[in-house]
Amino acid sequence: MFLMSTIKYPGAQHPVIKGSNVMDHHSKRGMFLENDVNESNQYYRECKRALIYKKPTPVQVVRVDYPARNKAKIVEAYYRTPSTTDYNGVYRGKYLDFEAKETKNKTQFPISMIHSHQIEHLKGVKYHGGIGFFLIRFNSHDKTFLIDSADLILAIEKAEKSFIPYMWFEKNGIVIKEGLYPRLSYLDAVDAKYFKEDN
Amino acid sequence: MFLMSTIKYPGAQHPVIKGSNVMDHHSKRGMFLENDVNESNQYYRECKRALIYKKPTPVQVVRVDYPARNKAKIVEAYYRTPSTTDYNGVYRGKYLDFEAKETKNKTQFPISMIHSHQIEHLKGVKYHGGIGFFLIRFNSHDKTFLIDSADLILAIEKAEKSFIPYMWFEKNGIVIKEGLYPRLSYLDAVDAKYFKEDN
Repeated sequence: MFLMSTIKYPGAQHPVIKGSNVMDHHSKRGMFLENDVNESNQYYRECKRALIYKKPTPVQVVRVDYPARNKAKIVEAYYRTPSTTDYNGVYRGKYLDFEAKETKNKTQFPISMIHSHQIEHLKGVKYHGGIGFFLIRFNSHDKTFLIDSADLILAIEKAEKSFIPYMWFEKNGIVIKEGLYPRLSYLDAVDAKYFKEDN
Repeated sequence: MFLMSTIKYPGAQHPVIKGSNVMDHHSKRGMFLENDVNESNQYYRECKRALIYKKPTPVQVVRVDYPARNKAKIVEAYYRTPSTTDYNGVYRGKYLDFEAKETKNKTQFPISMIHSHQIEHLKGVKYHGGIGFFLIRFNSHDKTFLIDSADLILAIEKAEKSFIPYMWFEKNGIVIKEGLYPRLSYLDAVDAKYFKEDN
């Protein structure tokens, strides 16, 4: 069920960073939250724990060429703003939906990193009975938190400044255990937060 | 809640078809199942009945130019095969996942229209407790059916020929009511099929 051959050592897929951008191991890992989440989702799918995918980045295709038969080549296209969050899927019969963000900032999380369409979408997820949350990574602390979407949205709406202090996450979030398989055990945090009674 | 201004008269978004491709009203409508599903999802979102989206088509971006500041222009990209189905979301607390297909064939549905990754994905949806189905439209009959994913997958796996007869859909599917708002009342069919006890 768990196909070891398709699981990569963490960091193996990370592009090589040359010259002045060389970073130490921890910072480099932190630069790639998306990659870690994708690898974790692949692991969770293979061991049949959940079915969660990253949505493709929406692209507005303007012009397509057909240089070879049956082979469409997109020659003009633009990135579009997604109307939803990046990740969704099904876990223990429930609809799961989340957004993952990382910051290098040591003491605070800039509110501008969360977009209004993501807030509206996650409010809708809750309204319809789904599970919605954020994965927020502080690279400098080497820590990733799971935060319930309603909690972070409330903190954002109440905020008098343009950021949420790091300590707020220490107080309100669940720290996600990191390892090899999966890279981020975020479903353990989901169990602790949303399936307490069943455990 | 329901923003009338953003709902279009059905067919309004359909591109004009010129010359030898001119079709009568019914056939033209049938050519655009995806558009009808998208408009229905928009309606369902606006009246807060469900939160269901079409996933963006995955694109492998090879080369990006920056002709103007902050404006990325994709100049080489290719369509990728999706690993999942086209639609998913949350309805009445449950995870919903489906694929929509249409055929001009009068007497049968070609099995080749359903891809193996879609079958595997929908098996996973059921395994994890989600609701999975197909919307199958027969343009020549001007009829769209909702079919439970397990039912159609079983019929495909048992099939001795390369198609499923139209009559099988008449027997095993739920006919979806069509109208203005929404274009396809497919959530009524979902209620009838999956929420019988609650109604």
